[in-house]
Amino acid sequence: MRRFFGEVKQDKFMLNGEDFKHLAVLRFSVGDEFLGICNDEYEYLCRIDQLDKKQAICSIISKQKCLQNPKVKITLFQALPKAEKLELITQKITELGATDLVLFTSEFTVAKPNPNKISRLEKITIEASKQCQRSTFLNIHPPITFDEMLKSLDCYDAVLFAYEKQKDIEKLDLKNYKNIAIIIGSEGGFSNNEVEKILQKSPIYFGLGKRILRCETAAIMSVGIVSYFVEN
Amino acid sequence: MRRFFGEVKQDKFMLNGEDFKHLAVLRFSVGDEFLGICNDEYEYLCRIDQLDKKQAICSIISKQKCLQNPKVKITLFQALPKAEKLELITQKITELGATDLVLFTSEFTVAKPNPNKISRLEKITIEASKQCQRSTFLNIHPPITFDEMLKSLDCYDAVLFAYEKQKDIEKLDLKNYKNIAIIIGSEGGFSNNEVEKILQKSPIYFGLGKRILRCETAAIMSVGIVSYFVEN
Repeated sequence: MRRFFGEVKQDKFMLNGEDFKHLAVLRFSVGDEFLGICNDEYEYLCRIDQLDKKQAICSIISKQKCLQNPKVKITLFQALPKAEKLELITQKITELGATDLVLFTSEFTVAKPNPNKISRLEKITIEASKQCQRSTFLNIHPPITFDEMLKSLDCYDAVLFAYEKQKDIEKLDLKNYKNIAIIIGSEGGFSNNEVEKILQKSPIYFGLGKRILRCETAAIMSVGIVSYFVEN
Repeated sequence: MRRFFGEVKQDKFMLNGEDFKHLAVLRFSVGDEFLGICNDEYEYLCRIDQLDKKQAICSIISKQKCLQNPKVKITLFQALPKAEKLELITQKITELGATDLVLFTSEFTVAKPNPNKISRLEKITIEASKQCQRSTFLNIHPPITFDEMLKSLDCYDAVLFAYEKQKDIEKLDLKNYKNIAIIIGSEGGFSNNEVEKILQKSPIYFGLGKRILRCETAAIMSVGIVSYFVEN
């Protein structure tokens, strides 16, 4: 069944903006049903009551918990990559079950933080959520500094760091963790000084094999592997 | 150290074509050194002896086995997706350690097989191999039919199939396998009839979580997870 993003208002499900346009293009009409999502934990079975030029007003026939939402909080701390890579990361880690994306600047980041781009990423995670059948979106945080990133790590019960110079990779056992952070560098990686600071946070070393992965591949794989261990 | 793709001829390393142009743009000159790769298991430390308009002739100072090559044969059987997705898959599974990509048509594939596109994919895997520091490339096979794909599965000692309707996912234990096949559908998935035929091959069911992944995400994640289990 087709999924649309809208909002619940006084027991009605309201569609407007892009998703209303999309519903109109698909020639949905009064009486037709769809699954509504609104970034909460439910899927709403909706029936269109009224269609005007700018919105659809719908009855909520039933609601149920969406089973495809992530079970554990997985936050990707991603040093700012170029826009195209960031868009790919946003789409893929939504599909793979991340809950939060925190961008940060570091010594070797080249891309400039641009808060206006967040809304573009939000559109991407909404589309990806509909496609992969989540009802909650990836929460995208505006860029912070490296030091702010370090400080915020204290709030997580596991911090994973893919450090290629670490030879003894620990076997991943994530079943007791409910709030997992993953740190990934940008195209240029981290400076020695930054690596030192991250290592002081006693991260779990996380092996991504012997090959040198592009930053977007490392981000996507890290979230995918963490989800794999947490969900299976 | 910079990597270039060339060929070994009578104890010399020869660069021409794209990689020669690239070396020229980077203003390499006689006496400069680089790592040469030529789709065998070695990295060649080379020194430029002679540069003319179309090629570089280089001495091979030493050669050593490239440690970043895949240890196990991992073949992705991918039902033909759209070109853009296929290019992303080719780049990412090269980084993640696949050895072969076999394309096939199935009932719901929309993209048309086009042997001319193989050379574009070959360029992508060469670039990705240099970047991730492999010396062997992904071997890209021209499209076959679904039934030909089924037949060829008999040559593998493990066949992995991400089947979303299978509830009991087996714990992946791949350490005894040396030749692993992974089957991934195109955007439209497989027909019931095709699924039946694949299930008759007694595949190892392979969970990619509860969310519906795009075909390129499923392909990338499958290769990444198999590599993770095989290499760690």
